[in-house]
Amino acid sequence: MATKPQPRSGKPGRPLWSGRFREPVDERVKRFSASVGFDRRLAQHDILASLAHARMLAATGIITRRDLRAIERGMQQIRREIQGGRFPWSIDAEDVHLNIERRLTGLVGEAGKRLHTARSRNDQVATDLRLWLRDEIDAVDGLLVKLLRALVSQAERHAALAMPGFTHLQVAQPVTFGHHLLAYVAMLERDRERFSEIRKRVNRLPLGAAALAGTSFPIQRERVARELGFDGLAENSLDAVSDRDFAIEFCAAAALAMVHLSRLGEEIVLWSSPRFGFVRLPDAFCTGSSIMPQKKNPDVAELVRGKSARVTGSLVSLLMLMKGQPLAYNKDNQEDKEPLFDAVDTLKDCLAVCAGMVAGLAPVARAMRAALDEGHATATDLADYLVRKGVAFRDAHEAVARAVREAERKGTDLARLPLATLRRFSAKIGADVKRALTTQGSLEARNHAGGTAPAQVRKAAAAARKRLS
Amino acid sequence: MATKPQPRSGKPGRPLWSGRFREPVDERVKRFSASVGFDRRLAQHDILASLAHARMLAATGIITRRDLRAIERGMQQIRREIQGGRFPWSIDAEDVHLNIERRLTGLVGEAGKRLHTARSRNDQVATDLRLWLRDEIDAVDGLLVKLLRALVSQAERHAALAMPGFTHLQVAQPVTFGHHLLAYVAMLERDRERFSEIRKRVNRLPLGAAALAGTSFPIQRERVARELGFDGLAENSLDAVSDRDFAIEFCAAAALAMVHLSRLGEEIVLWSSPRFGFVRLPDAFCTGSSIMPQKKNPDVAELVRGKSARVTGSLVSLLMLMKGQPLAYNKDNQEDKEPLFDAVDTLKDCLAVCAGMVAGLAPVARAMRAALDEGHATATDLADYLVRKGVAFRDAHEAVARAVREAERKGTDLARLPLATLRRFSAKIGADVKRALTTQGSLEARNHAGGTAPAQVRKAAAAARKRLS
Amino acid sequence: MATKPQPRSGKPGRPLWSGRFREPVDERVKRFSASVGFDRRLAQHDILASLAHARMLAATGIITRRDLRAIERGMQQIRREIQGGRFPWSIDAEDVHLNIERRLTGLVGEAGKRLHTARSRNDQVATDLRLWLRDEIDAVDGLLVKLLRALVSQAERHAALAMPGFTHLQVAQPVTFGHHLLAYVAMLERDRERFSEIRKRVNRLPLGAAALAGTSFPIQRERVARELGFDGLAENSLDAVSDRDFAIEFCAAAALAMVHLSRLGEEIVLWSSPRFGFVRLPDAFCTGSSIMPQKKNPDVAELVRGKSARVTGSLVSLLMLMKGQPLAYNKDNQEDKEPLFDAVDTLKDCLAVCAGMVAGLAPVARAMRAALDEGHATATDLADYLVRKGVAFRDAHEAVARAVREAERKGTDLARLPLATLRRFSAKIGADVKRALTTQGSLEARNHAGGTAPAQVRKAAAAARKRLS
Amino acid sequence: MATKPQPRSGKPGRPLWSGRFREPVDERVKRFSASVGFDRRLAQHDILASLAHARMLAATGIITRRDLRAIERGMQQIRREIQGGRFPWSIDAEDVHLNIERRLTGLVGEAGKRLHTARSRNDQVATDLRLWLRDEIDAVDGLLVKLLRALVSQAERHAALAMPGFTHLQVAQPVTFGHHLLAYVAMLERDRERFSEIRKRVNRLPLGAAALAGTSFPIQRERVARELGFDGLAENSLDAVSDRDFAIEFCAAAALAMVHLSRLGEEIVLWSSPRFGFVRLPDAFCTGSSIMPQKKNPDVAELVRGKSARVTGSLVSLLMLMKGQPLAYNKDNQEDKEPLFDAVDTLKDCLAVCAGMVAGLAPVARAMRAALDEGHATATDLADYLVRKGVAFRDAHEAVARAVREAERKGTDLARLPLATLRRFSAKIGADVKRALTTQGSLEARNHAGGTAPAQVRKAAAAARKRLS
Repeated sequence: MATKPQPRSGKPGRPLWSGRFREPVDERVKRFSASVGFDRRLAQHDILASLAHARMLAATGIITRRDLRAIERGMQQIRREIQGGRFPWSIDAEDVHLNIERRLTGLVGEAGKRLHTARSRNDQVATDLRLWLRDEIDAVDGLLVKLLRALVSQAERHAALAMPGFTHLQVAQPVTFGHHLLAYVAMLERDRERFSEIRKRVNRLPLGAAALAGTSFPIQRERVARELGFDGLAENSLDAVSDRDFAIEFCAAAALAMVHLSRLGEEIVLWSSPRFGFVRLPDAFCTGSSIMPQKKNPDVAELVRGKSARVTGSLVSLLMLMKGQPLAYNKDNQEDKEPLFDAVDTLKDCLAVCAGMVAGLAPVARAMRAALDEGHATATDLADYLVRKGVAFRDAHEAVARAVREAERKGTDLARLPLATLRRFSAKIGADVKRALTTQGSLEARNHAGGTAPAQVRKAAAAARKRLS
Repeated sequence: MATKPQPRSGKPGRPLWSGRFREPVDERVKRFSASVGFDRRLAQHDILASLAHARMLAATGIITRRDLRAIERGMQQIRREIQGGRFPWSIDAEDVHLNIERRLTGLVGEAGKRLHTARSRNDQVATDLRLWLRDEIDAVDGLLVKLLRALVSQAERHAALAMPGFTHLQVAQPVTFGHHLLAYVAMLERDRERFSEIRKRVNRLPLGAAALAGTSFPIQRERVARELGFDGLAENSLDAVSDRDFAIEFCAAAALAMVHLSRLGEEIVLWSSPRFGFVRLPDAFCTGSSIMPQKKNPDVAELVRGKSARVTGSLVSLLMLMKGQPLAYNKDNQEDKEPLFDAVDTLKDCLAVCAGMVAGLAPVARAMRAALDEGHATATDLADYLVRKGVAFRDAHEAVARAVREAERKGTDLARLPLATLRRFSAKIGADVKRALTTQGSLEARNHAGGTAPAQVRKAAAAARKRLS
Repeated sequence: MATKPQPRSGKPGRPLWSGRFREPVDERVKRFSASVGFDRRLAQHDILASLAHARMLAATGIITRRDLRAIERGMQQIRREIQGGRFPWSIDAEDVHLNIERRLTGLVGEAGKRLHTARSRNDQVATDLRLWLRDEIDAVDGLLVKLLRALVSQAERHAALAMPGFTHLQVAQPVTFGHHLLAYVAMLERDRERFSEIRKRVNRLPLGAAALAGTSFPIQRERVARELGFDGLAENSLDAVSDRDFAIEFCAAAALAMVHLSRLGEEIVLWSSPRFGFVRLPDAFCTGSSIMPQKKNPDVAELVRGKSARVTGSLVSLLMLMKGQPLAYNKDNQEDKEPLFDAVDTLKDCLAVCAGMVAGLAPVARAMRAALDEGHATATDLADYLVRKGVAFRDAHEAVARAVREAERKGTDLARLPLATLRRFSAKIGADVKRALTTQGSLEARNHAGGTAPAQVRKAAAAARKRLS
Repeated sequence: MATKPQPRSGKPGRPLWSGRFREPVDERVKRFSASVGFDRRLAQHDILASLAHARMLAATGIITRRDLRAIERGMQQIRREIQGGRFPWSIDAEDVHLNIERRLTGLVGEAGKRLHTARSRNDQVATDLRLWLRDEIDAVDGLLVKLLRALVSQAERHAALAMPGFTHLQVAQPVTFGHHLLAYVAMLERDRERFSEIRKRVNRLPLGAAALAGTSFPIQRERVARELGFDGLAENSLDAVSDRDFAIEFCAAAALAMVHLSRLGEEIVLWSSPRFGFVRLPDAFCTGSSIMPQKKNPDVAELVRGKSARVTGSLVSLLMLMKGQPLAYNKDNQEDKEPLFDAVDTLKDCLAVCAGMVAGLAPVARAMRAALDEGHATATDLADYLVRKGVAFRDAHEAVARAVREAERKGTDLARLPLATLRRFSAKIGADVKRALTTQGSLEARNHAGGTAPAQVRKAAAAARKRLS
């Protein structure tokens, strides 16, 4: 009986690999282990990679030119069916790869059955995922640039606008609003740098590793790599099919970028609280309350802050997923996709809304000024003044601290103490002290690379703008 | 102009809370902040809670009986529309609550506008989520029971089947297959206990907290709690709307339960590897390879192992989400749902497939026996034998260790060394030693509570079965 | 040569288990795998457990009464040596267990060599750790009570002190400071409940599981359990030595408790910022700046907020550690201690400093009042007023929203709009509206279980105090 | 009274910043917030940075040459005191910075008080930590090279040694042991690449940012950067003091590297299990059991696997720590050090022991061969053979699957089926099939970049060796 081939695995509802199985897969198990529900997102990249594979197979004589043309024709149609929402996705075919392969064989017959020569789903899925992620990294970079531009524009506009700089959420020293926003420029520029480095490692071709050991066919991996725009090979075949570093490092960089956005979100929530009132948010970026008619809530900033948590969660999932797995491919790896997809989507959405929100921020100079007037923000400047008069820094610090105590006692700001009072804490204090105690004087004095002096802020913003073009 | 009420917020496409806003919400922001894509899953529980709220409002005279009847009628229809897939979900109405409220007003007019009296979405969503989670905990418990039954059945069947117990994946001592499976029974019983404790804290009613401070209407919270089957109130109103402990502790318990299943998964992968060959998995729980025709892969066990990672990821997301949030409700909290939903779904799916997989496990006694014969598994029994002959345990351990070295040198198992050879390591060894060195003797000797003696295994399985009924 | 026992493993510098090894352990490996650097913390509990084990061995005749007396004598001395800092800890003896056992044998000879009969380090370490953790849970509970008392005292004192309640960090509705603090009481009471439930599962005796399968000696596990105050057995021997659920669930509860403290920390940072100025912190709980003489930083609150992160980190470590481990004991488990120790220490330290900090909080009524006056905090009360006059809630919400817009335009608070102006938004508004618009009126109206009315706050505080006594 | 300077802050037991405080810091709070217990590890780098700072201050005339010489002299002595373990560390001085500054002032007087001019602890600690981490990255790289060399040596030695390659822990196809080890070479080479990229971002100078805004002194940041070997500035002052990206990205890369080591650990545990028996571990890298005399446990491999969890835990701590922090410096940041220190130590220790363990691995060819003989490892080769005879791959896969079923039925390996039997599944099978079915034939056929053919393995090993030199 076994002498006559019975291609049961080709039958509808039977997996392509089912030749050695006696029982069908349990229905519940089929649903549990199918990935087509989420990996169909890779369909266009799967087709791209299959076409490059087929062309290489034809170029090396592993399949015929005629087979190649049939495959190209079939894939053309499949691509259209998918784009048009008419593709017959089926959970019976488990994943995006087998769905497309089965449809191809349905459309073009024998040639379709030859496509899977010299490859395996193990190297195929790794190839698809890398191709897809490479494109997404480029999209992320575009969104980072957009947000950076919004920040730099605001920084240029408000290069000299004084606001209190905080440490420990206590008023520390005056800074400019532009200087403050440029801190986020620094963070996001590091993010861009990281993503561009990761892109190099994402952009390596695993195809040709086959199941885990390479293949007995005379393949040309470099040719496929070239056609698909890869920078090189994920060479070692065992590593190529088991490696998910690229997904993990993307998620790590995304988690860090989201932490940056979470800090921006926190600050916008603070600044738009009536207790601060430092910025006004456009109505278009706020929502109201179903019960409290007066509310105008900075929902977008809060959501961005909150969403940082889910990307760290995805990162943890991936690290824990890969921990302790023996080589080479294990089914666990199928769990790599959803966290990665979610991290990409979350990061892109947040970057996009932040760009709009930052562009719409309207700082309220009056509120910033009022806050500066209550925090002894120029106390350090007074200490520096004394140092320039010859007092050792530690002694100067001590003298000013006592002056601050006196100002607190009187319920006023250090800058508003009369000269006579100030001189009680150090005889070195002269009439020229007043310049040091003004916000303007304080800002302008910090005139070195990275300092908050408006001239430096303009210079830094110009340099950032140049890097963005 | 402002003198004439213009209910703009009732207009299609305008949020119900938009009275104080001049500009419409940015389209991108609308998509970004809408939750109806995922929280519609709470629809039936939202309706349940709204009906209980409305009945209380009517009972206390806050709304009329007629209003109540209208609301009940409208909700009846909405429930059917949702079940039938005909409900007009709209992203403009943001979330499940406003979607339903808007539809209700469309169906029954004024009465619908009165439903939101004395509540807020803040207490409403917390109520819905708790109601939903309570039901899911009950479902999880049912699935735990099913898996426990499968384990106990196998344990009963194989209470005396000898296999090597491992520590450090080295053969340690003989145990029975039934005893081994009962270790998982112990783990999962702790899981049940934990979920039942968490259920008590989930099952508290936040409704009545309104936005954050309670309401000025004479509500009766206990009445609503009773009607909805809650065990009590989430009393303090600020806590009630900001608390997400119940979601976090559910995810913590789920992550731990998944770690248990991951260990079972790991063992099934090991056992079904040809290197072990300890069990055969039913075809229905395996899949094949697209390239290697001989493969029969324990995919289900691997996926379960892998999926443990995503539940820990969800737990991390929730803890990080809540960290450092000031009271009371912040929009960040909207991010609580997806991780919780995913944790519930993952745990339920994994429990269900594990129950089937465990029921289908067929142990291979021959392979277990072969493994026992190569690991000096009864070395500890020999040491214990010497102790009973008066040797101090440390000296006995030392003597046996040297005997093992001799067996290794000869390429045989300790149990097969001739008596004469054994006596070279201790003169206390007599002919009665042979009993101690057999697998059977070793197993039966461990005859105390929790020991691996078949009699104890049967007793433990019987006790577990009793707890399950 | 092998005929003469040579107890090499007893020699200094040779492990007690080294009988079958030819080469000594690599020095680097010895340092790498030794745990005595951190597990010596368990020494007193190790001795306690060993004594109970020895008494059971004597009671069942496994060792003699004389051996027992020698062991008791030796342990007495060891305990003193450890307390006095004179114990000769050695990395050669790997861990706390072998250090103590070796010293015991040095002190009392043969009897010491008999102590390890019928047990293994696998069940021994699990027993020690559970005993230790049980005590620490009791200590945590004591500190929770202390912090709860501080919160309840403050809540009683400030049951009627009005402050703005926030949602989205926007002024929402008036609440009382006491009511706000009681939200933390609710959180911490749930923490207590959780720890008490976990304690039950911690407090089970693994001893008797021996290496993994139980022992061939006629032990009495219940007797040991009773003597050590355990509630029952960790029965199944494979589970008993491999289970670390108790450590994981403690860390999960600790991470959640720390998230609660992080929220309190965040609020104290906000409240003590000059932008809020809602509370004054005692000098003793703040620090200054090395450069800015005016700074008074809420370091303790910030550190508590930050330290929440390390406990979540520990929880993740433990879950990831156990994931995918086959049964029974693997060396990986040694990594359970440091995260658990750190979680216990961090939680205890934070609870202790929070108790002091909360007790020292001095609210600033004036600043709270000023904040209330700028946020239209009673807008919801106006809507509720209209509902009581017969307007449907949605229409009332809409009318008030427009009134708020008018107040914003005029730069005033809703409550200060003249009656005539208010009536432009609804003809139902009468002179009696003023009461609804006052802070006092708003607070007192929320007079139901869990509401912010001072009477309810006093009631809730009294109930909490009762639960604490 | 306030007119006379009273440098209380210089007094022993009083913080240097205490000028404005009335009450001393609570003792418990002092212990809670002091970091000197762990940050003293940065002492040598703190001195290095202080000296570079002092030289710049002197070069720009901010302090005198004489002050500089005094500072240099004092630091020289402090360095010796620290190295000699004689430095009087004190918790009263909080952290490493103030401990050293206070001692300096004690040793050299006024000059010591001038050192802190134009800087703050905020930029100082960031500088110290970056300097320290830069050195540690170099040490990590050295250890990675050592481990890589061990792997490459083994790969060269065993380039042709056949073993079963696994997917899903089922025998998949033959690979060589050398090829398998080169997969780890690929992973660790990516790790090196990542650390070298991170080093660039670590190696930027924050000093000059002062507290958060820069300083009013005419500092020269580039000069300090040059002297300390930094690649450039952490320019924006707000970013410079608040940024901890460098610690997070180091921990992310370390967590990923540890996941690689955890996989190696898992494989060594599997391979050294008697069920596999693929490798022998040197005694020096194993330990025994306190109860089971026969045990030889791969503790080092297990611990490495387990320790991967703690590094992921540290990464989570750092991400969660920074989430949602407003700018600029907050005390939370003090919590950055312990996770980072632990990640560095863990990674270095694990790399070091792995290098030794890998160098000592002795593969057991016989066991590998036996495993190959039971897994139908050349089934794919038979399918490929059929494809070369003109059968479409899907049909070939199907035919071979049925042949495997037949072999299973007969209890033999596919490769041992008689030709006649094989031909029952496809008439295309000829006598030349035997070559395709041998392990040797299968290995040699995979002769393309990254394939497992011994020639390719040798080539890949040679290339790796070249990259290491």
